[in-house]
Amino acid sequence: METDLSLSEFQRLIERLYYAKDSGRGREATFMWFVEEVGELAQALRRGDQREVQEEFADVLAWLNTLASLAGVELAEAVGKYAAGCPKCAQTPCGCEKPS
Amino acid sequence: METDLSLSEFQRLIERLYYAKDSGRGREATFMWFVEEVGELAQALRRGDQREVQEEFADVLAWLNTLASLAGVELAEAVGKYAAGCPKCAQTPCGCEKPS
Repeated sequence: METDLSLSEFQRLIERLYYAKDSGRGREATFMWFVEEVGELAQALRRGDQREVQEEFADVLAWLNTLASLAGVELAEAVGKYAAGCPKCAQTPCGCEKPS
Repeated sequence: METDLSLSEFQRLIERLYYAKDSGRGREATFMWFVEEVGELAQALRRGDQREVQEEFADVLAWLNTLASLAGVELAEAVGKYAAGCPKCAQTPCGCEKPS
């Protein structure tokens, strides 16, 4: 299903689903759940099942959103730092000479 | 700056900025950069500087997007699993009896 919600619409959706439960658990414990999902994403990428990979990306994104809500951060606002090119070199595409 | 891009608009923005560099680096190395940013987010949350916290959320989201692009995943499509309530219990809010 292609929905293409906005960043703030998705953050609100995740809040309706999980904010009550996640705020009861607290920020530190919720961070641990988030990192657990990051581990599941690593495993899915290693296994290479594309459906599982897609599911795990969605889960990591959902947990990142709930964590942002717990921290009082609006992701739609936070990503403004990328709106005018790379935040470090101000170019599009990024021209930073970073180590790979 | 409040932009409220859609999920796919943000994924395209990050691709314009970083896809060339990140695809050259490869998926595994890019995953390590992503995890490094997750660590920086943990540190920012622990320190409690709200501006730093917001910046690190944006960075983790950006790296998650670039990683999704490298893996051929469209995040706007992936999050469809949350559109009809919790993917596990199908309720809004989630009614799963998970351990905290």
